[in-house]
Amino acid sequence: MGNTRKIIMDMDPGHDDAMALIVAASSPKLEIMAITTVSGNAPVEKTTRNARRICDLIHLQQVPIYKGASRPLLRAPEAAETIHGESGLDGPELSDNPEKTVEKEHAVDAIIHIIEHSESPVTLVPTGPLTNIALALIKEPGIAGNIEEIVLMGGGTFGNWTPAAEFNIYADAEAAKVVFESGISIAMFGLDVTHQALITPEIQQRISTSRHPAGRFVFDLLDFFMEAYKNTFRFEGAPLHDVCTVAYLIDSGMFTMEHVHVGIETRGEYTYGATAVDLLHVTGTEPNVWFAGSLQVDRLWKLIKEAVDSYEK
Amino acid sequence: MGNTRKIIMDMDPGHDDAMALIVAASSPKLEIMAITTVSGNAPVEKTTRNARRICDLIHLQQVPIYKGASRPLLRAPEAAETIHGESGLDGPELSDNPEKTVEKEHAVDAIIHIIEHSESPVTLVPTGPLTNIALALIKEPGIAGNIEEIVLMGGGTFGNWTPAAEFNIYADAEAAKVVFESGISIAMFGLDVTHQALITPEIQQRISTSRHPAGRFVFDLLDFFMEAYKNTFRFEGAPLHDVCTVAYLIDSGMFTMEHVHVGIETRGEYTYGATAVDLLHVTGTEPNVWFAGSLQVDRLWKLIKEAVDSYEK
Amino acid sequence: MGNTRKIIMDMDPGHDDAMALIVAASSPKLEIMAITTVSGNAPVEKTTRNARRICDLIHLQQVPIYKGASRPLLRAPEAAETIHGESGLDGPELSDNPEKTVEKEHAVDAIIHIIEHSESPVTLVPTGPLTNIALALIKEPGIAGNIEEIVLMGGGTFGNWTPAAEFNIYADAEAAKVVFESGISIAMFGLDVTHQALITPEIQQRISTSRHPAGRFVFDLLDFFMEAYKNTFRFEGAPLHDVCTVAYLIDSGMFTMEHVHVGIETRGEYTYGATAVDLLHVTGTEPNVWFAGSLQVDRLWKLIKEAVDSYEK
Amino acid sequence: MGNTRKIIMDMDPGHDDAMALIVAASSPKLEIMAITTVSGNAPVEKTTRNARRICDLIHLQQVPIYKGASRPLLRAPEAAETIHGESGLDGPELSDNPEKTVEKEHAVDAIIHIIEHSESPVTLVPTGPLTNIALALIKEPGIAGNIEEIVLMGGGTFGNWTPAAEFNIYADAEAAKVVFESGISIAMFGLDVTHQALITPEIQQRISTSRHPAGRFVFDLLDFFMEAYKNTFRFEGAPLHDVCTVAYLIDSGMFTMEHVHVGIETRGEYTYGATAVDLLHVTGTEPNVWFAGSLQVDRLWKLIKEAVDSYEK
Repeated sequence: MGNTRKIIMDMDPGHDDAMALIVAASSPKLEIMAITTVSGNAPVEKTTRNARRICDLIHLQQVPIYKGASRPLLRAPEAAETIHGESGLDGPELSDNPEKTVEKEHAVDAIIHIIEHSESPVTLVPTGPLTNIALALIKEPGIAGNIEEIVLMGGGTFGNWTPAAEFNIYADAEAAKVVFESGISIAMFGLDVTHQALITPEIQQRISTSRHPAGRFVFDLLDFFMEAYKNTFRFEGAPLHDVCTVAYLIDSGMFTMEHVHVGIETRGEYTYGATAVDLLHVTGTEPNVWFAGSLQVDRLWKLIKEAVDSYEK
Repeated sequence: MGNTRKIIMDMDPGHDDAMALIVAASSPKLEIMAITTVSGNAPVEKTTRNARRICDLIHLQQVPIYKGASRPLLRAPEAAETIHGESGLDGPELSDNPEKTVEKEHAVDAIIHIIEHSESPVTLVPTGPLTNIALALIKEPGIAGNIEEIVLMGGGTFGNWTPAAEFNIYADAEAAKVVFESGISIAMFGLDVTHQALITPEIQQRISTSRHPAGRFVFDLLDFFMEAYKNTFRFEGAPLHDVCTVAYLIDSGMFTMEHVHVGIETRGEYTYGATAVDLLHVTGTEPNVWFAGSLQVDRLWKLIKEAVDSYEK
Repeated sequence: MGNTRKIIMDMDPGHDDAMALIVAASSPKLEIMAITTVSGNAPVEKTTRNARRICDLIHLQQVPIYKGASRPLLRAPEAAETIHGESGLDGPELSDNPEKTVEKEHAVDAIIHIIEHSESPVTLVPTGPLTNIALALIKEPGIAGNIEEIVLMGGGTFGNWTPAAEFNIYADAEAAKVVFESGISIAMFGLDVTHQALITPEIQQRISTSRHPAGRFVFDLLDFFMEAYKNTFRFEGAPLHDVCTVAYLIDSGMFTMEHVHVGIETRGEYTYGATAVDLLHVTGTEPNVWFAGSLQVDRLWKLIKEAVDSYEK
Repeated sequence: MGNTRKIIMDMDPGHDDAMALIVAASSPKLEIMAITTVSGNAPVEKTTRNARRICDLIHLQQVPIYKGASRPLLRAPEAAETIHGESGLDGPELSDNPEKTVEKEHAVDAIIHIIEHSESPVTLVPTGPLTNIALALIKEPGIAGNIEEIVLMGGGTFGNWTPAAEFNIYADAEAAKVVFESGISIAMFGLDVTHQALITPEIQQRISTSRHPAGRFVFDLLDFFMEAYKNTFRFEGAPLHDVCTVAYLIDSGMFTMEHVHVGIETRGEYTYGATAVDLLHVTGTEPNVWFAGSLQVDRLWKLIKEAVDSYEK
């Protein structure tokens, strides 16, 4: 495993989180050391159950799952049922009693211990609210020294959950503030780039022909997700937000990245959870984030298709 | 003057303000009742002198000029010298001692009196910070009843002066808050649409052949403005922000407008002066603004060219 | 009038404003150049009518009254009916049609013009929200040079209208911010000192024996005011807040004053309108306010009694 | 131990924290289940060492010490060296290598486990910033059900660290917000009451005759503390803040308590960390705190003297 990259996937699956996990698990370039779950798209009990279900589906038994924070640092929890349905992963048929089990340790402690005990630096891949990551950094600030990078989905120069804020950051902006001000190297995949990764029925067909269980799952999952985006946001096509993080880890060349300062807004009356991305370099503040601006989208679909196909062999 | 629309142009010229005034003064559809000046692109003494210079140039002697606020409601003044130069209107050759005079009355009082005494409703056209308009509404809230519409340049879903805020709103966000919460009908031309109105050398040539004084002025003004945008923002082409307001009053059909809620951020740590535009209708708040989303740009250049040509006859 | 001090009384009468005016008008040390009214304890129409009524009562015909702002800079108006009753000055019997008239000029303009035309510096004595004063300073910042001092009632290290804020500052904290950051010398009489000026029935008797119209008025006014404080705040005794400003101008020696920094809170979630008084000198910020800490209360009652008596001769 | 009250003392010793621990440990009414340390008066390494030193001194070997948070939730750490000296407990002579050891478990986890495993509800006694308590409540919200009460030192209607804020709340206002909004019963001992517990040389003599090690320690500790308050705040006498919490648990009758709403300010420009105490019941918000208003101070000195004496037998 010499050249693999050690990652912890911190997630709230969620349709696009599921896709991110499916792609990551299929890649020989990545070693998933743990899946940690968090409240976000749905309460943590549901996102944890969804993580277990996906592990069952793709036979990912060797990666431990740790349940994490059930609430944000300061705010009341926010759920995204309009997008992900009542279970947090509506659409595909999934078992109610997944076989995959959950470890006893809290996700925050697992993150700390894995990083502390790893011989080489670990990359965190959060695709939900940043509560677990922030709590780990508050509890043991020293772990920052053994984190290679935080590759996250969140934010953007515009919003989707409010006019100014994207869901993951809005759901726990204080946690995001802790992470973005930590000094750790951050690669940020926000709405600017994830809205370029729009799944359409044509792409859905291309990615998955649904002949095998994993393909069937992906096919149904995309069905539900496209329908939800159409109903809620009047979008033609559904943005596969979270997959961008994993795609970057496998094939970073498909993205253009810019080094900029990003400030997390926690005090605004209309802009709580906004990410102020200094693309024009007008603030004079030192960059703290590699911001993904654009994407070679065909390269992304190819990557996903190969991942899905790999399960069908 | 039966079908003309009565307008007060509240401005801080400024290159694009100058263009807006040139276009407005040439239109038989608009009756400019007053020009009121405000601190913004430059201090109010300079913006007032610039307004006088433009009136000299286009022989606009019958329209009174009133000098307005020299500072924002709460903040320290912010000047935009990087864009408009030391005089606030660098580039074209202009007299240091304009003939056009300034009235004694303060702009805020002139706005109040003109509206109070007008037999038909008046439209306000602010293309600078909203200090004068806000002060008039605070001092005499009753004038709202005789204001037809406020057609303004400001804001957007992204920023230019900070990552989140456009210059005019940032320069006095508290004033913007007063105006946007006034209940008066507002048409907002923000960066989303004004960045579609990009002047390039090719367009510059098309608009103005520079054979006559007004044409020469416009030609030189665009030269300076394009250079400034290139140096400050690395833009190819300079957005003629303020002209959009006047273009809308003359030929509204060239714009697509959407009725949305816009909140003015005055409390944010990174987002002071942001305009939260609810394009996705996720806030559930009653719309208060007609937001300009797109522009048929050739129709705009045609309008401007006709305006410039009209002075050369 | 060589040694008299020129003052403008900016007020929202109001029981304690009324007392302040009665005391000021009786003093040979003060020359009241104008009474300007503002929304506060009641809407400005009512506070203006109350000012006229008091002028009738004490035959103060030579001092002009100017009506001022009907709303705060940014907020919706806040009225204090629980304390001052429906008229803003309930209790004493007063004419519905006062003889005293109101000038045409707006209070904000009157303040500007009086200061601009006065040969010697003018002292402002605001005993209501600071809207008029702030508007004058925003409209004509140059007047600061001819203002001797602003002697105001407002704020304190604790609140009465909210846990953290006193009514006058809370009613327009943005206006207070403009005034406190203006660089003009400020003497501040907040709740710390005005709650030492508690009227009780015993003091009421001492001050006014009610044999004459002015005495009767004062007696009835204090009756209503004591009852209101008892019902609203469970106070034994009613604090004669506004009188402290005038008492200071006549006999400053009865107060101990400390030079401190005072910041006006406009952004707090629980503390909007709080005055952060740096009595412990922990902020390291330059003092901007003379803060009244304590009061020789018998000296105040004597001053008031003499004032009331002077009308009965 | 039937009628004893189980407590966890969460502290940042600190002179007055030390006194609180000395009093608590001497009382048969209290069962100290753990001492948890936090950054505050000094960094957590120092406050932990100080806790160990005090345990050595009073032979408190059976109570485990757990080291807690080294930084606040969101802010940079704030230390109070002007008051407590470089070690966080300057003054008394203390060993550099205390014998008492620290447990391996993190304080946050210890708090969670002790509460989860206790057969009867546990009372938390925080006398420093509330970081540990907030982290425990965020990580395992369910522990709220087995917490009897949180008896804390912090806040007040005025400030000491800034004009509006007391040190413990200011040092981590976000943590305080989590605790005060938790729904758990809170008894709050703020500056209003702790500034009534002023140690003077006369009281110092009465409490401790310094013949024995514990007495000597207390004597020297009070010496340093009185001197620090004189130098920093020009106080005659030093307020024994933290002891009030323990005194309340032993003899609640010496305090008058009022049930009020307290809001924690995290957004103010001048008032970050203020506690808005609704003593006048003007907000209409449901009470969430029992607020200590006054104190029978002789009863406190008697309690402390008996505690100190108990070690000298």
